[in-house]
Amino acid sequence: MSELRKDPITGRWVIVAPDRGKRPTDFRLERPTVTGRGQCPFCEGHEHMTPPEVLAYRPHGGMPNGPGWDVRVVPNKFAALEVEEALDSKTEGLFERMNGVGSHEVLIETPRHDETLARMSVAQIERVLRAFRDRVVALEGDPRFQYVVFFKNHGATAGATLEHPHAQLIALPIVPGFVREELDGAGRYFDAVTRCVFCDLIRQETDAQERVIESTADFLVVSPYASRFPFETWLLPKRHAARFVEYPESGFEHLARALKRTATRIDRALGGPDYNLIVHSSPSSEDTAEFYHWHIELIPKLARVAGFEWGTGFYINHTSPEDAARALRSVSL
Amino acid sequence: MSELRKDPITGRWVIVAPDRGKRPTDFRLERPTVTGRGQCPFCEGHEHMTPPEVLAYRPHGGMPNGPGWDVRVVPNKFAALEVEEALDSKTEGLFERMNGVGSHEVLIETPRHDETLARMSVAQIERVLRAFRDRVVALEGDPRFQYVVFFKNHGATAGATLEHPHAQLIALPIVPGFVREELDGAGRYFDAVTRCVFCDLIRQETDAQERVIESTADFLVVSPYASRFPFETWLLPKRHAARFVEYPESGFEHLARALKRTATRIDRALGGPDYNLIVHSSPSSEDTAEFYHWHIELIPKLARVAGFEWGTGFYINHTSPEDAARALRSVSL
Repeated sequence: MSELRKDPITGRWVIVAPDRGKRPTDFRLERPTVTGRGQCPFCEGHEHMTPPEVLAYRPHGGMPNGPGWDVRVVPNKFAALEVEEALDSKTEGLFERMNGVGSHEVLIETPRHDETLARMSVAQIERVLRAFRDRVVALEGDPRFQYVVFFKNHGATAGATLEHPHAQLIALPIVPGFVREELDGAGRYFDAVTRCVFCDLIRQETDAQERVIESTADFLVVSPYASRFPFETWLLPKRHAARFVEYPESGFEHLARALKRTATRIDRALGGPDYNLIVHSSPSSEDTAEFYHWHIELIPKLARVAGFEWGTGFYINHTSPEDAARALRSVSL
Repeated sequence: MSELRKDPITGRWVIVAPDRGKRPTDFRLERPTVTGRGQCPFCEGHEHMTPPEVLAYRPHGGMPNGPGWDVRVVPNKFAALEVEEALDSKTEGLFERMNGVGSHEVLIETPRHDETLARMSVAQIERVLRAFRDRVVALEGDPRFQYVVFFKNHGATAGATLEHPHAQLIALPIVPGFVREELDGAGRYFDAVTRCVFCDLIRQETDAQERVIESTADFLVVSPYASRFPFETWLLPKRHAARFVEYPESGFEHLARALKRTATRIDRALGGPDYNLIVHSSPSSEDTAEFYHWHIELIPKLARVAGFEWGTGFYINHTSPEDAARALRSVSL
C-alpha cells in the first residue's frame, strides 16, 4: 500500500509507492523500455490487456471492453494510488502521512497506435478533451479528492513507457505544490490590485508581442517571460475562468485546434521532441473564481538532464523565451 | 548578457542565459558529451585551459596557474552569470528582471582525473571543504550577492560535462526557491514551538532508527521521511548552526569521513550511480540563527527521468526511505 508523506520542513507532499519484491540490485538506473505496437495494451482489439474501462465513447455502440471505441479511460495497471480505501491520516511526532488514497487513470486518446497530438484530427482531440472533462467531473464528485491532475508524457525521455498516445489523470487527497504556489501567487496579486494576474499577463503579452507564438479569438499561446525550460509554452484561454471544466464544450474545437497547431509548431521547429503537457486548473474545493485562471503548459524535453535543478528549485535556461517564440511563430503550418 | 527573471505568478526566479549564435536546428535534444582524460582542462598541467584561478592550495609553493596544487578554484568558462557588473533591476508592468550579476566558479577537487568522493582520501575531502568555506566567505563579502549555492553534479545523467571531480559555486543576487521554502518552513516551526525543526528531526529519527543510515558523534545520515527520490540521503550535523561556514575547521575531518562513507555506501549498494550533492545553508544576509540548520543533500540519479514532476512539483517515489536506509546501512565498509 502506498502512502502520502509530508516533509516536516517544507510541507511538500510525496507519494511513496514501493515496488514490492525489489532486490537491492534492482535499484540501479532503469533504462526506459517503451512498449511498441505488437504488445500494446492500448491498441484496439487488446482491450483485455487493461483493467476494465471507466469510460469509453463508442459512436456506433458495442460492448464495454471490446473494440469500436474512439476514446477509452481505464485504471492505471500500475497505479501509485488506490481508489478503494477510506482516507486515513496519522501524525507521529514531526511526521504526517495519509494512506495512498487516490485514483490513477489512463486516457487512451485514440485506437490508433501511431498518432500524435500534431497528427490527430481536430475532432479526435475534441473527444479527448470531452473525456478529460467527464472524468474530472466524476472524480471531483468524490469528497476524498482535493485535486485532479491531468497530464501527458510524450516519449521515453518525458517519462512515457508506452508509445500509444495516452494521457493520465491522478486524483489526489491533497493539492499538489505547483498548484498551491500558483493559487497563492495569483491570490496575492488579486488582493493587491483586484485583477486576475493571468488576464493582466494576456493583455501585456498581447501588447508586447515578442513572446507571442499565436493569438486566436479564444487563446493566447506564449513563451512565458520566466520560462524554466527551453521552448516552454503556455496556452492561456482569453476568457477568464478558474477551472477547465467551466470552459464550454462549444469551445473544445478552438482549444483542439490551438493544441494541434502548437504541437505541430514544436514538432517542426524542434524535430518532434518528447514533451510533457500539464493542465493547470483550480481545485473544485476552493473558491478561486476571481483570481485563478486555468491554462495548459507544454514542456519539450530539450535540455540535458540538469539534475541540479531538482535539488535547488533554481533554473538556468539557455534559450531566451523571445528566441523560442520567434522560432515557433515562424513555423509554416 | 544573461538576465534573472521573475515569474509574475509564482515569484520564482529563473536565469535566462542564451547561448548566442544558436540556429533553430541547434535546439534539439543535446546528447551529453563528457570530456575525458586527454582534453581535460582540470588535470594538472592543463592549467592554461581554464580562466585564471581565484584560489588554489599549493602545499609546496609554486606559481599561480601552474602545477603543484591540490585544490583549485577557477571561474566557470561558460558562466551563466557575470561578476563584473553593477546590479540593475527593472520592472516592466508585471515583469521584473535583473541583469545577470553573479559568480559562477568551479572547484576542482583534486589534480587526479579518476578520483571520486568515495575513493578520495579523507585529507583531500577536508581540503575541498576548506576551499568551499574560503570561497563562500569571500563571495559573501560582496554586497551584491544574497546567496552562494554549492553543489556537485557527478556523472553525465546528473548534469556533469566533465569527468574530472569538480563542484560548483554560484553566487546569486537572490535567494533561490528551495532555500526560501526551507527557511519559511523552519521559521514557521520555530514560531510555533520555539525549537529548530532539524534538531527535532535528528532526535526523532535517532529514536525511530528505521531511516538512519549512520550516526556518528557529529552527524546523522538519514533517508528523509518524505524522500522525493529513491535513495535520497541527508547528512545532518548534530550541532545546531544555520550556516556551513560556522562549522569549525576542526570538524572538517568528521564531515569528510561521513561524506566518504556515505558516497561509498551509495557506490556499493547501487553500482556507482551518478548523483547530485547540494549544501543547504542559510544566507548570510538573514538572521536565521535560531531556526535554520545547515545540511547536505545527496540525490542519486536512479529513477527514470519522470518529466512530469518538473511541471507539477509532485513526486512519486517507488523506493521507501526505510528500504533505502536498510540497504545503505547494510553495506560493509
